[in-house]
Amino acid sequence: MKFGGTSMGDLERIRRAARIVAAEAAAGKQVAVVVSAMAGKTNELVAWTDGAGRPSPKLAEQGIEPSDDEYDIVVASGEQVTAGLLALTLRNMGLNARSWMGWQIPILTDDAHGRARIEDVPGEVLGAAMDKGEIAVVPGFQGVSRSGRITTLGRGGSDTSAVAVAAALECPCDIYTDVDGVYTTDPRIESKARRLEKISYEEMLEMASLGAKVLQTRSVELAMAKRVPVRVLSSFIEPDENGVLPAKSGTLICDEEEIVEKRIVSGVTMSRDEARITLLGLSDRVEAPADVFTRLAEANVNVDMIVQSQARSEGAVNLTFTTGRRDAARAAELMRAAQPQLGFEELRVDEDVAKVSVVGVGMRSHAGVAQTMFRALADKGVKFQAISTSEIKISVLIDAAYAELAVRALHAAYGLEEV
Amino acid sequence: MKFGGTSMGDLERIRRAARIVAAEAAAGKQVAVVVSAMAGKTNELVAWTDGAGRPSPKLAEQGIEPSDDEYDIVVASGEQVTAGLLALTLRNMGLNARSWMGWQIPILTDDAHGRARIEDVPGEVLGAAMDKGEIAVVPGFQGVSRSGRITTLGRGGSDTSAVAVAAALECPCDIYTDVDGVYTTDPRIESKARRLEKISYEEMLEMASLGAKVLQTRSVELAMAKRVPVRVLSSFIEPDENGVLPAKSGTLICDEEEIVEKRIVSGVTMSRDEARITLLGLSDRVEAPADVFTRLAEANVNVDMIVQSQARSEGAVNLTFTTGRRDAARAAELMRAAQPQLGFEELRVDEDVAKVSVVGVGMRSHAGVAQTMFRALADKGVKFQAISTSEIKISVLIDAAYAELAVRALHAAYGLEEV
Repeated sequence: MKFGGTSMGDLERIRRAARIVAAEAAAGKQVAVVVSAMAGKTNELVAWTDGAGRPSPKLAEQGIEPSDDEYDIVVASGEQVTAGLLALTLRNMGLNARSWMGWQIPILTDDAHGRARIEDVPGEVLGAAMDKGEIAVVPGFQGVSRSGRITTLGRGGSDTSAVAVAAALECPCDIYTDVDGVYTTDPRIESKARRLEKISYEEMLEMASLGAKVLQTRSVELAMAKRVPVRVLSSFIEPDENGVLPAKSGTLICDEEEIVEKRIVSGVTMSRDEARITLLGLSDRVEAPADVFTRLAEANVNVDMIVQSQARSEGAVNLTFTTGRRDAARAAELMRAAQPQLGFEELRVDEDVAKVSVVGVGMRSHAGVAQTMFRALADKGVKFQAISTSEIKISVLIDAAYAELAVRALHAAYGLEEV
Repeated sequence: MKFGGTSMGDLERIRRAARIVAAEAAAGKQVAVVVSAMAGKTNELVAWTDGAGRPSPKLAEQGIEPSDDEYDIVVASGEQVTAGLLALTLRNMGLNARSWMGWQIPILTDDAHGRARIEDVPGEVLGAAMDKGEIAVVPGFQGVSRSGRITTLGRGGSDTSAVAVAAALECPCDIYTDVDGVYTTDPRIESKARRLEKISYEEMLEMASLGAKVLQTRSVELAMAKRVPVRVLSSFIEPDENGVLPAKSGTLICDEEEIVEKRIVSGVTMSRDEARITLLGLSDRVEAPADVFTRLAEANVNVDMIVQSQARSEGAVNLTFTTGRRDAARAAELMRAAQPQLGFEELRVDEDVAKVSVVGVGMRSHAGVAQTMFRALADKGVKFQAISTSEIKISVLIDAAYAELAVRALHAAYGLEEV
């Protein structure tokens, strides 16, 4: 079981989470619980580290690599507090519980402080404690490097911690959060959005990376790799007077094979976190685009969609690509700096764009998915500026003003409404 | 070096502490720094654990001992945060620093969670890091039990942590605090109080346990046992424009042999944390007092002064003893519950008392110390209700209303004024 920052927000919410944990234990289950820091706490801790400053460049002159190891010491304390408080609350209810810090289990990570990746979680220690009837409470987001220092996984890392612990214990993972599952699209955009009973890892991965914020992408990758069934469900539930939870609903993220009712399209996502950069009048020598993308890759700028078209001037092309909005300024600067070498005429950056995508494993076996998409958009007068596809998704870049309209049109075109 | 909660109260104060640390490092010293949590933080964390409740008695029925291990997980986080922030601040100034959690050094304690005692601090790991030129930053108050769980030392434990780390590193210990040393008496009571240049461990131990709040008693015990020179000095100092600190003043707590200028009395202390309990008309059979004090000892009530006097009624005595004020209600309840067995007529509890003490190693070799005390008190019309002595102190219990008057009278009688 995993509870997020809202579900750990204060002592009353911690008590509610504890009642849900108690109900699972009373139902005869062995339980490990992964917790986030109290909502807002991590931001406070990060602000303190910002105030304390970052390692001075002088250290590099002494041969000392700058590292976020001390940042991790400060920031990891938030989950340590909620883990202790939840264990105390469970004991106060008469349950046998104890907390396990990342370094005690251990949750082994690499030493990329502030954005560490989990390398290994041995299940023996937790498993032995749970076999004795203990509920194990584990702070999310934190681990320990092989050199024995506390690490953190980066924002949203608690989902990943939960999946890693479930994988170590070879059990399913229930993610309790402030939404009650994964929807066919954002219900704030399309009120007819429908909660999915099940969704495959591959689809969830596309949806997470395309803007559905239910789960952190890395947690879905890990669940897929380790075949951990993950259920997303609401933490706003209460056991009945007999301490029994309502039947589990939410959304199960699982193997494609376990989904009986096959759909062609499972969901529609939208992201405004995009920017479009166009190089007008780029030399049409074949090396020019390669040169552009090599420079971007070397600066760690991820490029998503690419479109090349004939320019007005002879012997020149227009090259359009999209990046995350955060990277746009840096990408533009890289291009401007290389203008003499690349030889383009004009650079345009447009952040007034959105990416709308349809996702579904059924695309693999069904033709006509793209036609349905393009017809639905054309019917509403929505023009698209670029396209990218994978085996199970199609994304289009459109004018941001049309984003919600496009989402609703596609949701209807694929018959995703609540029935 | 050790900095308390006020000196770690916010980022600006942490920066000031960092400048003092930097000045010591610039002077060529290898430095380890022990830090308290931000002032007020420990209280907040303790309040959260109170809200989460204490282990339910139901656990005991399952054979599970109640323990404050989860309390420690929550409360130890306060020092973890300041240790990380101070290390970051030092790095931001271009200094090579890193934090070491209690479990990383390790600061080994027993498993009495919430009030653990340090058993061992191996100096190898910290020493090796400091030999490489690193400033070691260590959270005070926390340790790790032999079973690998985080422990805390109880309130004021950071002083003890600092002395233990100094002992492990075989170096002196500078305690930076919000007073500039140890005084002959509390300057708020007697403005003529004088800062002591040096004071012996034995005297400091008596002063700390008699109410002088500069250092936690256990830290002085440890310093005495390990012969760690401890200097108490003000954290309200700044290095000059060359990064050099003013010459160290404060008070050095050290071996008696190192104190050249011998005084008969070093200080006068006063404590209101006392209660007087009197059993009137207790049976004069010889076992009766033993029975009283056995019952108190079994309930962990410490008794300080004891006076027995003849009662008015035949075959009965009046037995007076003092306890800490916190224990008074419990002690009275114990006595009332045992009234049939003990057979006393009446119980009186008086919390309107104070204990005034004079402390000095010179008492060992000088007669007349007590006479001076009694004469000074008599001259001011202060009656005493009980007396206790050790080799180097004399304490009297008096009416609380006379406490300050008595302190000033004794301070003058032993010639302790600033000259």
